[in-house]
Amino acid sequence: MDHSPNRTEPKRRGRRAGGEDTRAALLQAAREVFVERGFEGATVRSIASRAGVDAAMVNHWFGSKEGLFAKAVLQLPIDPNTLVERLLDGPPELIGERIVRNFVTIWDATGGGQFAAMVRSITSQEQVAEVLRQFFVQTLLRRVIAHLGSSDAELRATLTASQIFGMGIVRYVVRIEPFASADVDTVVRAIAPTLQRYLTGDIS
Amino acid sequence: MDHSPNRTEPKRRGRRAGGEDTRAALLQAAREVFVERGFEGATVRSIASRAGVDAAMVNHWFGSKEGLFAKAVLQLPIDPNTLVERLLDGPPELIGERIVRNFVTIWDATGGGQFAAMVRSITSQEQVAEVLRQFFVQTLLRRVIAHLGSSDAELRATLTASQIFGMGIVRYVVRIEPFASADVDTVVRAIAPTLQRYLTGDIS
Repeated sequence: MDHSPNRTEPKRRGRRAGGEDTRAALLQAAREVFVERGFEGATVRSIASRAGVDAAMVNHWFGSKEGLFAKAVLQLPIDPNTLVERLLDGPPELIGERIVRNFVTIWDATGGGQFAAMVRSITSQEQVAEVLRQFFVQTLLRRVIAHLGSSDAELRATLTASQIFGMGIVRYVVRIEPFASADVDTVVRAIAPTLQRYLTGDIS
Repeated sequence: MDHSPNRTEPKRRGRRAGGEDTRAALLQAAREVFVERGFEGATVRSIASRAGVDAAMVNHWFGSKEGLFAKAVLQLPIDPNTLVERLLDGPPELIGERIVRNFVTIWDATGGGQFAAMVRSITSQEQVAEVLRQFFVQTLLRRVIAHLGSSDAELRATLTASQIFGMGIVRYVVRIEPFASADVDTVVRAIAPTLQRYLTGDIS
């Protein structure tokens, strides 16, 4: 699909029809602007402007800047704000289990191909690595850790990221058996205690 | 460097001069043959033949097939057999610590660039992923786990691989702080208990 006409036209005044072309133009503009300016630096206004649509269309189609990022860059089938709420909804001592269960369920549903594509982007483009670093650690994991109230929040966020990344690599990219095909309960029993310790346990 | 003359010449009789050109020809041939046939399928004889040198030159220059693989494909600055001996030399309850300490020390010494290059190869070429899967899990980690005598050796090997990969990604590829610059003792205190549990603890 070529959406370049949307980007070369002068900015439209007010709303344009909120149809699929608006959504596609926003996705395309978001991929460009997030990589150019980073997750924090990219504003909803700047992305909408690049797409030639009203800023309200971002909320209409994606719920939030995080939701647009998740769809455009991560191709995640869930809004990150919804995901954070879901992770925090339950006893703190089971946060490790909730993370593993959600991670495996979400990426298994996409066949793992989107996780592999994301890892390829990270390892081949420094700007993509930077924007994902900001998003995963500063936006997603820090919110979870702030809620838990643990000390050493930044180190805990990176340790958690290391096991989550590694789990995804072995399951979806290098696909090492028996882990790659293990059922979600086996993965939870093995990995959840690691994340639980990184998030709320003794790490020093 | 173009070593193709070594590969198009007919196979020489007996030894050729064991100089740097032999070593370079073996490295080039090894990269090709390992990717074509996998780690198990590539024989010392077939690699030496591709390089147009005597098979004894592999031991002379690299100590073993594992040593040649480590240099040619992983660009590891250590022979894997030496590494396994070093990992197994000490109390089993400290194997997690020895793995983390050796991993960080070895890849820190290369500036992490070689780890990042390896991850890029894994994620962009399915054959490289396969040969590394065979090497790391079947050759390296299984030998460690066989020595420890734990049950569920294959699942333990893949869990261990997941945290080792993830540690490398966060430290050397995505470089998320404070983990990317943490001193080795901080990394050991945080990660070693995870590997220890995956290798000898309760995972189910």
